[in-house]
Amino acid sequence: MPNYIVAPLDALVDRLESLPGIGHKTAQRLAYHILNMPEKDAKAFSEAIINAHEKIHYCKDCCNLTDGDLCPVCRSDRRDRTLICVVEEPKDVFALERAGDYPGLYHVLHGAISPLAGVGPDQLKIKELLARIGTGVQEVIMATNPTVEGDATALYVARLLKPLGVRVTRLAYGIPVGGDLEYADNVTLQRALEGRRDL
Amino acid sequence: MPNYIVAPLDALVDRLESLPGIGHKTAQRLAYHILNMPEKDAKAFSEAIINAHEKIHYCKDCCNLTDGDLCPVCRSDRRDRTLICVVEEPKDVFALERAGDYPGLYHVLHGAISPLAGVGPDQLKIKELLARIGTGVQEVIMATNPTVEGDATALYVARLLKPLGVRVTRLAYGIPVGGDLEYADNVTLQRALEGRRDL
Repeated sequence: MPNYIVAPLDALVDRLESLPGIGHKTAQRLAYHILNMPEKDAKAFSEAIINAHEKIHYCKDCCNLTDGDLCPVCRSDRRDRTLICVVEEPKDVFALERAGDYPGLYHVLHGAISPLAGVGPDQLKIKELLARIGTGVQEVIMATNPTVEGDATALYVARLLKPLGVRVTRLAYGIPVGGDLEYADNVTLQRALEGRRDL
Repeated sequence: MPNYIVAPLDALVDRLESLPGIGHKTAQRLAYHILNMPEKDAKAFSEAIINAHEKIHYCKDCCNLTDGDLCPVCRSDRRDRTLICVVEEPKDVFALERAGDYPGLYHVLHGAISPLAGVGPDQLKIKELLARIGTGVQEVIMATNPTVEGDATALYVARLLKPLGVRVTRLAYGIPVGGDLEYADNVTLQRALEGRRDL
């Protein structure tokens, strides 16, 4: 008995399945949903993919994603230009902006040093960060993730920055607000103890 | 503090979020993944959506999805043309074809009668099914889902078909193979008892 194949549908399912966290069943469900969309929604979806790819590039100062020459943060005149927060990925900038308390600029490395994954310092936007130091920056906050790779990257960048005479700090580690001591893992508890403060 | 917005990225996130089962966080993750794709993969993805929409339509006999005039099943000369299996959705055909044991043709209704959702018999491909009966069909298997809507649709279609002199059957209900009596729900158990057979 021949297997039932509709080539354009299979092509779409394959594309959807290549996305992270989408398995074959989910890809099929999504493909049917897309097929049942009105023609104009499907067109808009298709164009959104191409648009995002064509119009979004790196901000020439901070390497974050933007559709302009500079990103909205670098363009703003209400930001503290003596402070740079270094993150791994653009989504980390969005998270910090959502929190809404940070007054300074950002720098996006686009990854972390990871010998296992074949990512060395040269593949990250570290040169671009060093180039920004001469412009009156006083403090660099290393906000890479608290993982082996993130910590290694923070140490590596800190070692490059210190001789240039800037203060280099690291985000605080500890129990998350609303968290429970009982369920915190050992390493987090150790870091929370190490980082204790006077009340 | 201005919210960090990159319009083309937000547009893509919105589109992805409109898909079933995809929340805001997942949509963001998928959008980043799409952004990080090589240019040609993003183009192919975008084209797969448009292609699927433009090339896929209903088979003129069975109303299943196809990119040709007839679907592969209706086109095949190895199928038993006296037998039609009526299902709700194209994905039901794929499921039955995967099982690989069914020798006949299909008919896709594209839904089930559901007064609550405003779906009446006229919105389903029932006229198209009745039009096929004159062509030597001897048995119609109602394989709509075992839900209130699926059962109602099966009964409705059966009542239309019986005066035309075809045998109308319904898929068997019972405990799924590999299932456990202990965990079967009451209705399934009742149906399994009703449908018992001689050994």
